[in-house]
Amino acid sequence: LDPVDCRTSSKIVRLPGLVDVHVHLRDPGATHKEDWDSGTASALAGGFTIVGAMPNTNPAIMDQATFELAKTLSKAKARCDYGIFIGATWTNTTTAGNFANEAMGMKMYLEETFAPLPLKDDINVWRDHIMNWPSNTTPVCVHADGRNLAAILLLGWMYNKPMHVCHVSHKEEIDIIRDCKKRGMNVTCEVSPHHLTLCDKDIERIGSGQSEVRPRLGTQQDMDSLWENIDYIDMIATDHAPHTYEEKCSAKPPPGFPGLETSLPLMLTAVHQGRITLDDLVKKMHTNPMRIFGIKEQPNTYIEVNMDEEWTIPKKPEYSRCGWTPFEGLKVRGKVSKVVLRGKMVYIDGKILAEPGYGLNIRSTEYK
Amino acid sequence: LDPVDCRTSSKIVRLPGLVDVHVHLRDPGATHKEDWDSGTASALAGGFTIVGAMPNTNPAIMDQATFELAKTLSKAKARCDYGIFIGATWTNTTTAGNFANEAMGMKMYLEETFAPLPLKDDINVWRDHIMNWPSNTTPVCVHADGRNLAAILLLGWMYNKPMHVCHVSHKEEIDIIRDCKKRGMNVTCEVSPHHLTLCDKDIERIGSGQSEVRPRLGTQQDMDSLWENIDYIDMIATDHAPHTYEEKCSAKPPPGFPGLETSLPLMLTAVHQGRITLDDLVKKMHTNPMRIFGIKEQPNTYIEVNMDEEWTIPKKPEYSRCGWTPFEGLKVRGKVSKVVLRGKMVYIDGKILAEPGYGLNIRSTEYK
Ligand SMILES: [Zn+2]
Ligand SMILES: [Zn+2]
Ligand SMILES: [Zn+2]
Ligand SMILES: [Zn+2]
Ligand SMILES: [Zn+2]
Ligand SMILES: [Zn+2]
Ligand SMILES: [Zn+2]
Ligand SMILES: [Zn+2]
Repeated sequence: LDPVDCRTSSKIVRLPGLVDVHVHLRDPGATHKEDWDSGTASALAGGFTIVGAMPNTNPAIMDQATFELAKTLSKAKARCDYGIFIGATWTNTTTAGNFANEAMGMKMYLEETFAPLPLKDDINVWRDHIMNWPSNTTPVCVHADGRNLAAILLLGWMYNKPMHVCHVSHKEEIDIIRDCKKRGMNVTCEVSPHHLTLCDKDIERIGSGQSEVRPRLGTQQDMDSLWENIDYIDMIATDHAPHTYEEKCSAKPPPGFPGLETSLPLMLTAVHQGRITLDDLVKKMHTNPMRIFGIKEQPNTYIEVNMDEEWTIPKKPEYSRCGWTPFEGLKVRGKVSKVVLRGKMVYIDGKILAEPGYGLNIRSTEYK
Repeated sequence: LDPVDCRTSSKIVRLPGLVDVHVHLRDPGATHKEDWDSGTASALAGGFTIVGAMPNTNPAIMDQATFELAKTLSKAKARCDYGIFIGATWTNTTTAGNFANEAMGMKMYLEETFAPLPLKDDINVWRDHIMNWPSNTTPVCVHADGRNLAAILLLGWMYNKPMHVCHVSHKEEIDIIRDCKKRGMNVTCEVSPHHLTLCDKDIERIGSGQSEVRPRLGTQQDMDSLWENIDYIDMIATDHAPHTYEEKCSAKPPPGFPGLETSLPLMLTAVHQGRITLDDLVKKMHTNPMRIFGIKEQPNTYIEVNMDEEWTIPKKPEYSRCGWTPFEGLKVRGKVSKVVLRGKMVYIDGKILAEPGYGLNIRSTEYK
């Protein structure tokens, strides 16, 4: 508040490269919203040196041909390191497991979404996927609410597979996950910064089409319950889901928010507010995702953050192609000033220095 | 087949009094179909000396007033011993547990049924019920299919409550229960004789309205899977659900079959066919339900069965008020000839000798 105080307390801290296990890069299929190039530039600008790309592209990543396509596109274009998820479908229950080592993990969509990968209500298909996923490999990541979450966690427990719950957003889900953890279940979860900072009270300000997101923004009580249970939340993940502003203003606005360039500043603001310690934030944005997804440390990699820079989130992210953000106008404190990835300066003071193709697939032999 | 052989091999065996943990006695509310008197007469004629009465009556058994009403009606009319279930509703999550010792158990309806007790899809209500049910008391019995079954079993596991799955009928449910048992879960289950002996191929013969039952008759594969997993099935329970023949022939036939007078003969026929041993049948119709529902042994109680009597199931049960059976015309082998309950001959050669009111509530001090 006192400008002198602000200046004198200004503090640069060095953190490890952040990991975002949940991004939608829209490539292949909707590169007017984002692609491997723009999305990974957006990641670096947000302090992320590794992203996990979701499989609900067009075509969806669900078999050998589409997995190879994603590998080819990412290898040519990615500016930061990355993993690729294999999607679970009705048709690949016996083959998805073949990708257990090469993929970042398997993604299961148990709810109706706009994605081409809904598994709907068939418990037999869910069970086949969980049974057939190889043990002691990468996690099975689920988009599941309410009773579907309870059902899929039972299957994970039955067959002793590591389960990871994406974007926990409501009291009912965090209650279940917390109590499963207390009972000893091998389950982890992530929460997005938007579910930690926005609730249904913000819909009017953001706009009704713009505020469409899955899972939906919760109530104040939902948001409070996430903070109350923050110790049971393993990761912060953006669920970066870019759509153009025009699409968000259309009659059928697709659900999703961009998040790569705003997530760390929003979370650093929470650190500043005393809601979470910087140590815990680093656990949730680096240490835990590295361990849970079995990723080797990136050598000579770190980011520098100005903890005390106060700024207002602008109308558009700098690098994401989507051209809007639900956080427009929010005042935040903390900004990425520098990113060094595998010995190379890849981002400094707003400029991306990594070329497309510099990023490595975390499951490739080059990375290992 | 040779009448002389039949005569010479004729064999009377003495078995313990059978326990049917799942009957609908329609009292209060629909006594034209059945009541505590006719239903318990039907039980004795079928070899059952204890029945568990489901709470989806009218009014439903869900609070102090309705539980007392069921106690009063049963005390005046029951001819065999019995327990009374408390129903879980939206409104009694904090009070249902008060009946944990006085009830036979709690019944949760997770599917849409014709009952007044559906809990629909609200995982919070399910969770509150499981959390609030006292530990180390009677089981929580669930009517749940597919993913709802998986979800409720997770909740039972989370809060370490004994769960009992009613009328398992399809491959998908027995697969889940078997694998949960293998993993060490405290779960038990029952299967009805109709799901062990009828499948969708029988619908034409039985009639489409008459064959309405919940869960529905499965496929041949479903029926086969129940027999394949018979070692994981703790109990045979009739799910005796009488409706009048007129109702079953109406435009909106209510789902449900009578079962009390036909279940033992159908199962003895399976013994005769070598599908199950008599020892295992006694476990599933007496020993296991007694242990799982915490019922003390009935002194001086037994039934006598003619193992070799062959007969054809008639158009109507002798004692149930419903006046029809889906098993009409089936040839069976094995018949109850005598029932002795607490030292008194209560059934012999087709005649009921117990008066209404002779039956005791298994949770009452008189019984204990
Ligand atoms: Zn999702
Ligand atoms: Zn929810
Ligand atoms: Zn997502
Ligand atoms: Zn590290
Ligand atoms: Zn039922
Ligand atoms: Zn089923
Ligand atoms: Zn029933
Ligand atoms: Zn016994």
